[in-house]
Amino acid sequence: MRFVSEAGRLKAVLRQTRLTDPARQENSAEHSWHLAVMALVLAGHAPPGTDLGRVIAMLLVHDLVEIDAGDLFLYADEAQQARQEEAERAAADRIFALLPDGQAGRIRALWDEFEERTTKEARFARALDRLQPMLANIAADGGTWVTHGITAEQVLPKVALIEDGSAALGAYARGLVARAADAGLLG
Amino acid sequence: MRFVSEAGRLKAVLRQTRLTDPARQENSAEHSWHLAVMALVLAGHAPPGTDLGRVIAMLLVHDLVEIDAGDLFLYADEAQQARQEEAERAAADRIFALLPDGQAGRIRALWDEFEERTTKEARFARALDRLQPMLANIAADGGTWVTHGITAEQVLPKVALIEDGSAALGAYARGLVARAADAGLLG
Repeated sequence: MRFVSEAGRLKAVLRQTRLTDPARQENSAEHSWHLAVMALVLAGHAPPGTDLGRVIAMLLVHDLVEIDAGDLFLYADEAQQARQEEAERAAADRIFALLPDGQAGRIRALWDEFEERTTKEARFARALDRLQPMLANIAADGGTWVTHGITAEQVLPKVALIEDGSAALGAYARGLVARAADAGLLG
Repeated sequence: MRFVSEAGRLKAVLRQTRLTDPARQENSAEHSWHLAVMALVLAGHAPPGTDLGRVIAMLLVHDLVEIDAGDLFLYADEAQQARQEEAERAAADRIFALLPDGQAGRIRALWDEFEERTTKEARFARALDRLQPMLANIAADGGTWVTHGITAEQVLPKVALIEDGSAALGAYARGLVARAADAGLLG
């Protein structure tokens, strides 16, 4: 129950992504929920044999470390990314240890799996985590792409990560980015 | 993708439950995420043979109807509850129909199962949905119990619903309510 209460603090972690209605920053708890719903309804685009339950479990816990480490903007530089990785590992050590013994290891393993991105479940989960902010940016007339002057060249590696998790969603994302560039939403 | 975008609107639906940090009303998207995380870590308190994947799927979609119907306070009167049920059914008809054919029926069936509360999966999911606001009220020094002058007699039927889904969580909730009453948080 200490973990359940601690997890609630993710509702206070704000992301760069802006919602249009209401116009405010998205928080990491509702972002995690949206990803889990996407996994449920887009499961047909996962590679054959994907364990959907593990995908959803990973998505539910993948951002809990942000309670301590905060959310880092997707296009932060390498030094910032390295500092963030360290902070997230320390957060994982603290937060998952609030769980009873066997369970702490099981949930931590889900977080490690998501980070390592070696299983098809983790790759599909990571693809959704990259696709959702793109959808939000398109819905918000460019959103953080416009605010931060992001270019198509910066977005394309994210598309490659989506393709790596799901060929169909990758193709869909590639089309989105091409149309966004045509519409002048990407520099 | 129209459904995925529509689902995001649940982030705008505010609940009575107040968060303490930040001090604001909880929205139904982050509430749904918290319940799914609770299902993941409290699964050991579900009846033997419970299909955890279906519990989590139900929790992820159970409040989507609130995009149209809004959230009704748990202690609303019977006439309000009846109007809410009708509004939620109309919302389910509209929102789940945004999904492709076969999938619309599958996700709608999850929502129906949650509402009907006949399977052990639905009863466990409903127990978590009742327990989470209790935890929030205790964390907020009585929260909506104090604001609305709720009595222990009004809370106990909710405890019975938790017991119906999980004996262990029901016993835990009964203890919480007794201590809250002793502490003067319940009228």
